[in-house]
Amino acid sequence: IHPVYAEMGTTVFERMSALARETGAINLGQGFPDGPPPAPLLEAAARALHEQSNQYPPSVGLPALREAVCAHYALTQGLALAPSEVVVTSGATEAIAAAVLALVSEGDEVILFQPAYDAYAPMVRRAGGLPVSVLLQPPHFRYDAAALEAAVTPRTRAIMLNDPLNPAGTVASADELEMIARFCTRHDLVAICDEVWEQVRFDGAAHRSLMACEGMAERVVKIGSAGKIFGLTGWKIGWMAAKRDLGSALARVHQFLTFTTAVPLQWAVAEGLERADILDGLHADWAASRARLKAGLEAAGLTVLPNAATWFLCIDLAASGIALTDREFSERALREAGVATVPVSALYESGQNGQGAPSHIVRLCFTKPDDVLDEALERISAWV
Amino acid sequence: IHPVYAEMGTTVFERMSALARETGAINLGQGFPDGPPPAPLLEAAARALHEQSNQYPPSVGLPALREAVCAHYALTQGLALAPSEVVVTSGATEAIAAAVLALVSEGDEVILFQPAYDAYAPMVRRAGGLPVSVLLQPPHFRYDAAALEAAVTPRTRAIMLNDPLNPAGTVASADELEMIARFCTRHDLVAICDEVWEQVRFDGAAHRSLMACEGMAERVVKIGSAGKIFGLTGWKIGWMAAKRDLGSALARVHQFLTFTTAVPLQWAVAEGLERADILDGLHADWAASRARLKAGLEAAGLTVLPNAATWFLCIDLAASGIALTDREFSERALREAGVATVPVSALYESGQNGQGAPSHIVRLCFTKPDDVLDEALERISAWV
Ligand SMILES: CSCCC(=O)C(=O)O
Ligand SMILES: CSCCC(=O)C(=O)O
Repeated sequence: IHPVYAEMGTTVFERMSALARETGAINLGQGFPDGPPPAPLLEAAARALHEQSNQYPPSVGLPALREAVCAHYALTQGLALAPSEVVVTSGATEAIAAAVLALVSEGDEVILFQPAYDAYAPMVRRAGGLPVSVLLQPPHFRYDAAALEAAVTPRTRAIMLNDPLNPAGTVASADELEMIARFCTRHDLVAICDEVWEQVRFDGAAHRSLMACEGMAERVVKIGSAGKIFGLTGWKIGWMAAKRDLGSALARVHQFLTFTTAVPLQWAVAEGLERADILDGLHADWAASRARLKAGLEAAGLTVLPNAATWFLCIDLAASGIALTDREFSERALREAGVATVPVSALYESGQNGQGAPSHIVRLCFTKPDDVLDEALERISAWV
Repeated sequence: IHPVYAEMGTTVFERMSALARETGAINLGQGFPDGPPPAPLLEAAARALHEQSNQYPPSVGLPALREAVCAHYALTQGLALAPSEVVVTSGATEAIAAAVLALVSEGDEVILFQPAYDAYAPMVRRAGGLPVSVLLQPPHFRYDAAALEAAVTPRTRAIMLNDPLNPAGTVASADELEMIARFCTRHDLVAICDEVWEQVRFDGAAHRSLMACEGMAERVVKIGSAGKIFGLTGWKIGWMAAKRDLGSALARVHQFLTFTTAVPLQWAVAEGLERADILDGLHADWAASRARLKAGLEAAGLTVLPNAATWFLCIDLAASGIALTDREFSERALREAGVATVPVSALYESGQNGQGAPSHIVRLCFTKPDDVLDEALERISAWV
């Protein structure tokens, strides 16, 4: 077994969901909405099953979906992408793996901001690269130019950026993005931009793709996810977009990672992307759930960190006067209160070696029906 | 761009299908049935969309599907696999990539039989390994002990076996499998067994998994495909099975390659695997199409190679008195006769360097409606 996998555990999201299933706990751990996905998407998928071919679409994805992705980005982010620059993938996780396999060679260093999706660092290592961590700290998880400069070496090849940021739910400011863009152009780096939360924003928070920043158009792999946009995480439709040689290299990696992606669901996502009303409805629901969980947590005496995106709220244990680490809290909340959460230190890979990761932040997913949130809040308040 | 991808072309299957779409040719190139998939699977998928959760299933796949895979292998191949030893993947291509990433480290040699799916060698190289080719030759594509012994070195770590064999449509004999098993145990090798064609056999040809051979139970990654079993290549549901440490390592690779696989389609495949009548119906159809194409090719004066599995027949240009290479034939059949085929030399990677690959074999896919086959045959006869 390759050492990367021999030494690796199971992702915290899977572990938490498995424990929640086993113990019957309410699952506010792994990020997914509980309710059914938008009816028009279900109907479009059922229609595609019966009316369209169920055989291989093009490896890079259905033209209709690649066109819809481009139109969506033109409208929502002012990006000029051509369908030939988009590759549909089996979820954003495949896109991340493909981008890393394309871009990272033996000995390359890759700057990862922490906290991060726990797939990033192992894929970089399996590709032969060395992850170099730059830690972001609560409560604001700001990007710092000096920390970036301190991390760069002549071997640095790429950065990986997740904006909006899971688990924090923060969105990089225009200034931060410009700083990161200048950093990339100055050091001739590419950026793998996991922007799966681009559409899941609240309180009017703006988001801009790093791809739109000066000098970045041809340096960015932009990764998106229908699972996040439409709240149907089990469909596993994602995509990646990049210009020119980079885009065509991604298509070649993808052809030998999964070849292509479930075609009836591609048709449905293509239809969904053309329906702005679907997004509006989802966002209204999610905003209400977010407000409900926030109010309930605060009523229970817990300090909720500022946040403007994703399906998550984070609580600050120290500020809440709780003398437990995040791992202790998550473990005991599961066993004693019957609520699964995610200890944020699990998403700091360097934190696992004790190097300055915060251990007092816990993440909770709010995209759940009111009664589920209310029951979870009751359990947490009674237990805290 | 990593050199493996910088130097790589687009897979022959994708290229041929794209050319067929552009020119309006009949596509007997890439392997897929034209007709609709079995109605019970379509209905099961539509039902799952509306009645089951559309959110993340477990990363390793729905328990119902993993149980169905085990029951299917117990019944059809006498294999004793537990659901915990099965990982559902986004098609067999993902399973191949995952197995290679798990098993192949820097400097490892991997024996590949040629012809082979053109994904194998690049994945081995991207994992840091060195593909070592053992060529199989028409008309019988037999496995030869001396050729295997000549290929092994102290660095050999694994073999990759595709049985039944695409493009040849041959099935390894019991003696050949025993020989390969002894070779693996003697040299302490693992085997990545791409057995996606295991259910697509004709003329009563038997197939046994290498996993069932003596000493191999814990040395084999067995890879299967619902796309091939049910003729729905666009659903991208595959799986891999392996025992103990190997199995759990595969689960960890998978969690960071695609995390999990389209859940409504997993439900449908689980239902399908429990319905033997569906397979019987498909096989009757495919056997009739195979006989039709064979008779038509022979009537056109073409020599068809012996074959007992897959959706493909191969013709021998030399034996047919056609003085073209397979690439010339495929190119001209596409442009002049309007029929897309696959030149088999494209699936001999070493053949691309001119080392002894046959260049007189062309593959045609027969899983098409009668009128499509008849029209293709008419075009080919008129043109030949
Ligand atoms: C692929 S499991 C990770 C799900 C997720 O995005 C999260 O819970 O943060
Ligand atoms: C993934 S495209 C390859 C399809 C196939 O199995 C074939 O045509 O041989």
